[in-house]
Amino acid sequence: MTEIDPLKAGHAARREADAPHSLVLRLPADRPLMMDAGVALAPLTIAYQTYGTLNADKTNAILVCHALTGDQHVANTHPLTGKPGWWEIMVGPGKPIDTDRYFVICSNVLGGCLGTTGPATTNPATGMPYGLDMPMVTIRDMVRAQALLVDQLGIGKLFCVIGGSMGGMQVLQWAAIYPERVFCAIPIATAPRHSSQNIAFNEVGRQAVMADPEWAGGRYFELGKSPTKGLAVARMAAHITYLSDEALHRKFGRKLQNKTAPTFSFDADFQIESYLRHQGSTFVERFDANTYLYLTRAMDYFDLAEDYDGSLARAFKDTKTRFCIVSFTSDWLFPTSASRSIVHALNANSASVSFVEIDTDKGHDAFLLDVPDMLATTSGFIESSARAFGLKEAKSA
Amino acid sequence: MTEIDPLKAGHAARREADAPHSLVLRLPADRPLMMDAGVALAPLTIAYQTYGTLNADKTNAILVCHALTGDQHVANTHPLTGKPGWWEIMVGPGKPIDTDRYFVICSNVLGGCLGTTGPATTNPATGMPYGLDMPMVTIRDMVRAQALLVDQLGIGKLFCVIGGSMGGMQVLQWAAIYPERVFCAIPIATAPRHSSQNIAFNEVGRQAVMADPEWAGGRYFELGKSPTKGLAVARMAAHITYLSDEALHRKFGRKLQNKTAPTFSFDADFQIESYLRHQGSTFVERFDANTYLYLTRAMDYFDLAEDYDGSLARAFKDTKTRFCIVSFTSDWLFPTSASRSIVHALNANSASVSFVEIDTDKGHDAFLLDVPDMLATTSGFIESSARAFGLKEAKSA
Repeated sequence: MTEIDPLKAGHAARREADAPHSLVLRLPADRPLMMDAGVALAPLTIAYQTYGTLNADKTNAILVCHALTGDQHVANTHPLTGKPGWWEIMVGPGKPIDTDRYFVICSNVLGGCLGTTGPATTNPATGMPYGLDMPMVTIRDMVRAQALLVDQLGIGKLFCVIGGSMGGMQVLQWAAIYPERVFCAIPIATAPRHSSQNIAFNEVGRQAVMADPEWAGGRYFELGKSPTKGLAVARMAAHITYLSDEALHRKFGRKLQNKTAPTFSFDADFQIESYLRHQGSTFVERFDANTYLYLTRAMDYFDLAEDYDGSLARAFKDTKTRFCIVSFTSDWLFPTSASRSIVHALNANSASVSFVEIDTDKGHDAFLLDVPDMLATTSGFIESSARAFGLKEAKSA
Repeated sequence: MTEIDPLKAGHAARREADAPHSLVLRLPADRPLMMDAGVALAPLTIAYQTYGTLNADKTNAILVCHALTGDQHVANTHPLTGKPGWWEIMVGPGKPIDTDRYFVICSNVLGGCLGTTGPATTNPATGMPYGLDMPMVTIRDMVRAQALLVDQLGIGKLFCVIGGSMGGMQVLQWAAIYPERVFCAIPIATAPRHSSQNIAFNEVGRQAVMADPEWAGGRYFELGKSPTKGLAVARMAAHITYLSDEALHRKFGRKLQNKTAPTFSFDADFQIESYLRHQGSTFVERFDANTYLYLTRAMDYFDLAEDYDGSLARAFKDTKTRFCIVSFTSDWLFPTSASRSIVHALNANSASVSFVEIDTDKGHDAFLLDVPDMLATTSGFIESSARAFGLKEAKSA
């Protein structure tokens, strides 16, 4: 585990961006990634983790797509925080995504800060971090980069692509542009496009970062600065949207933090204040502010139907992919209505689709948590899809 | 209208704090306000506006309580913005609060920045603005200050106290501590206590202000600074919570701002981004950052039941006040369930209470907008209450 100096917060992500604690695919300068922004990005680095063993037929691969503040460290100790992987509840031996049976891949998204090319990566043309010289990234760009990695691993067809939130957007994008390469898809707590309210919250986060003078037009690394305060505020605002009103009430209510009476000051009197401040300060130790700008922008730009003349159904035309759509009752950021619009588009194609709305008060964050109905739903769907795909029960090697 | 220099944003509020374009009640140093924080505040200045004429019996007074970012300029041109009063839809000749019949009073709340003593006011002890030396303010302190003004105007009993959001909290507080002085009460889009989610959003706003180095520990006036960026971010985040997801979708959706394609940059591509940035930048021209901290804190501290051994019913024990509670279906900041808890507490006292949940997609902000059902409800309630109170139809003088 890398030692974190809070005074240098953010700079740990900088080191990780160039020299990740991960497997790395480095594509040569003559194999650029053609991006939606109209730029050919090269050289491209993709940092990734794998779990389990790829079978001889290369048919047992599951691609996990991570969310905005996630990374490739799905089921191993995080190199910066020392904490467990972000989806150990879902991925591991005997878990719904059973690493005794499947070969699990997760790559840091394009624009990320944990080793895949992003704004914190050194731009070989200048020797300095890309910063805002990094071309704007879209969800489709992220998926194109993942496809290059999957190619490199020699995998033609993925057994499954799964992810929540921004990860779910990538799942939908995979199914839309590489339908023949995805046997089954599990988009969780996501939407086919970002809503006005979601764009609004993201814009607040970006403005909070950019308002911090330490952001310095995105050139903070070069100047030895770090916009930790702005990024912490962005994280705090976003974090509220990941939780439900009910869950906040249940967990915190109006309980005071280590005191019996209010202080009549601006100290963190309430537990919820102390909790949010903690969320903000720990986040900046592991995440890059410019990556936060790029990835929120990628989410805002996501509107799958727009690429198909406004018809979401056309995005999935004649799809053979099997879908399992999951939403949560208390998720107000990516509400069930958004998932339902995906189901309708798939139904219009007579696609194979299961849709489960899970009753929980845990809000959007539910996809990261121990929600038994989610684990049972995904486990059952993966099991039945494996049979349909002709995957053997026993671990193959 | 005062000329605004955007470079001096915030400092207009500073001038207004000491020399308001309002009526002013100045209480002498020997008549301090005893505050919940345990401090005797003196001298106290209360800036206020009135509309209509107080009748000979002094029985036709309606006190309007303003919300977090409101002020006393209910129904006249705002001295800083030049815009109409914030509640002209409700207050004026022939309006639900008919200034041809009623004497309407609205004072800037304690801790405000439009002339009532607050952090932007000059502290006579130092000759500098109070800043964080201003004692923490509670909703009850605001109401105590209003009661001093009502005393000074020679009014024993108010015919009506009305307000939305933080104004509604003041209405509830009035009914609880001065039941014999309130004939009828109209708390709109409010709650008997601030929820954990609401505290969370307020805390984000405060952190955004305090993260701005121009805030300078609250001493920005003395240092010729102004934390406009932090305050703008706070306003943007809060503004999202005042609107509903539906209204945002209807008004903005994913429409682009003056362009036909995304710019692949961090410009305000979407209309909602441009709108929010505008909300942020105009707000800082008329509001003081420290006042924002104090008033959000006052809301967070508000928990009416807590003052009555946790029993909201006891807050309204044997009340004779007539209540009309109004909530809006799409208000997720102060949801109908909060209003319903007030109704239950009043029912436990066999109080006279009307409760109307109005169907609108306009969110929390609905109380400020032309929502015909709200106008009809308040108008009808005020009319029937006037009859019950024995007020004559014709304008009295």
